[in-house]
Amino acid sequence: MFERVAILGLGLMGASLGLALRGRGLARDIVGYDVAPDVLRRAYTRGAISAWRDTAAGTVLGCDLVVLATPVLAMRGLLADIDRQLAIEAVVTDIGSTKGSVVEWAAEALRTPGRFIGGHPMAGSERSGPEAAEARLFEGCAWCLTPTERSDPAALARLVSLVTALGARPVTLAADQHDVVVAIASHLPLVAAAALTRTAVECDTWTEAAALAANGFRDTTRVASGDPRMARDICLTNGRALVPLLDAYMRQLGGLREAIQNADSAAIEAVFASAKAARDGWLATRAQ
Amino acid sequence: MFERVAILGLGLMGASLGLALRGRGLARDIVGYDVAPDVLRRAYTRGAISAWRDTAAGTVLGCDLVVLATPVLAMRGLLADIDRQLAIEAVVTDIGSTKGSVVEWAAEALRTPGRFIGGHPMAGSERSGPEAAEARLFEGCAWCLTPTERSDPAALARLVSLVTALGARPVTLAADQHDVVVAIASHLPLVAAAALTRTAVECDTWTEAAALAANGFRDTTRVASGDPRMARDICLTNGRALVPLLDAYMRQLGGLREAIQNADSAAIEAVFASAKAARDGWLATRAQ
Repeated sequence: MFERVAILGLGLMGASLGLALRGRGLARDIVGYDVAPDVLRRAYTRGAISAWRDTAAGTVLGCDLVVLATPVLAMRGLLADIDRQLAIEAVVTDIGSTKGSVVEWAAEALRTPGRFIGGHPMAGSERSGPEAAEARLFEGCAWCLTPTERSDPAALARLVSLVTALGARPVTLAADQHDVVVAIASHLPLVAAAALTRTAVECDTWTEAAALAANGFRDTTRVASGDPRMARDICLTNGRALVPLLDAYMRQLGGLREAIQNADSAAIEAVFASAKAARDGWLATRAQ
Repeated sequence: MFERVAILGLGLMGASLGLALRGRGLARDIVGYDVAPDVLRRAYTRGAISAWRDTAAGTVLGCDLVVLATPVLAMRGLLADIDRQLAIEAVVTDIGSTKGSVVEWAAEALRTPGRFIGGHPMAGSERSGPEAAEARLFEGCAWCLTPTERSDPAALARLVSLVTALGARPVTLAADQHDVVVAIASHLPLVAAAALTRTAVECDTWTEAAALAANGFRDTTRVASGDPRMARDICLTNGRALVPLLDAYMRQLGGLREAIQNADSAAIEAVFASAKAARDGWLATRAQ
């Protein structure tokens, strides 16, 4: 499907993409770059890339697909770095967690901004690094693509085909809409999990609690074990959507706190019953 | 180990205990009771009990072990109901989520309060009902036992043996201490997950978010799918520990909100890095 693919950033996500492309025979060559030479070597050892280069610009040379797979803020510099070496017909995309900023940066940095289309596979893991990569990570997931008015329809069509060939489900939406919606589905849970973990470990009796904490604690906090730089960049590039959501979450918690304080049995049960009904309903649609 | 065991309440937990006792040959007969006749029948069909009775008092007749396995608040009435029919040598325990109230109620209701020792296996599932029961649910879990000064040492010894024979790890601690510690490990995550689910579903764009929500959302909210009555009773009997924890959680969230609002990169990364370090450290001790 592509002759030569560049993957810039070879953590869990970039390396999983490399494995998936190779496993499904969707790229002849996969050239990798990462700011950390060690990560690059490990991704090569893991089989995620077939070659590597010392610079981002050198990596994209002669590639017909370029994928940015770093934490979001690093993409700004990368786009500026690679512009001069990009083949005029290259399709450029990313697999970062937020889309508004990246789409703006691409419009500013690239001579052919229409060839850039933001992307975000709704898949991941709390683990990080090329060792945690999985060829099947993207199978069955929704994969957001965020074209703009200036986007080249042919580039979009090629990415839709690629996403489908990877076993994922392409979902096209505007970058701003993506950021609002994913803040609910993914970024608020991430912030909630990190804050929950910190609240627990700052308790005087955390040592005793840690000895008793079981699967409930493990799952509720799982995403707090993810890469802190990825989380930081999500917060820095999606504050506009996250801050009001955090306010809504604190209001929700405050309401429940009052009901508990007042021993308001009916109000407490109503909260849990409606949360259960909503989540069970969501799970049921997901299973279809 | 026991001749005749009564299990009062045959949801996920009670029915799992029945299956575990039968599977490991730890009780000759297991007699069940549940306020819902339908649940009782399903638990029998599932193989969790060998017989059932129409009343709690009738169920405990001739039993040498009685286990209360209902939501916590229902235990108060049950203890009063069964007292007259309890064999004088019967050991009585429970597997409820909070311990302070139950221990108090037992001291008030029973003629032989020393034979009651509160219990709480740190295991469970967001599923409910006898169909979700699993014989192996308790294997490897910590199982709290909360004796008081008045507790009969022989009763405690028999429960420690039983818990060990079930493949779990007995942890003896005071009821009040249990409630503080488990509020951190289990009850705060439960409240956080329910509030998070409600915050998400009350968003205008929940339908779009639901279509993109993936494993992160699923896991962070998992425990919100649990039995709402169980959650209600936890809140009603452990408010003293939960309310200050909720305040600490909201402060934590408020701090992170400010850092995001101010785009304070270093502060944001520090929160996520310390949460990751703490959780990864906890997981490592757990794997040992």
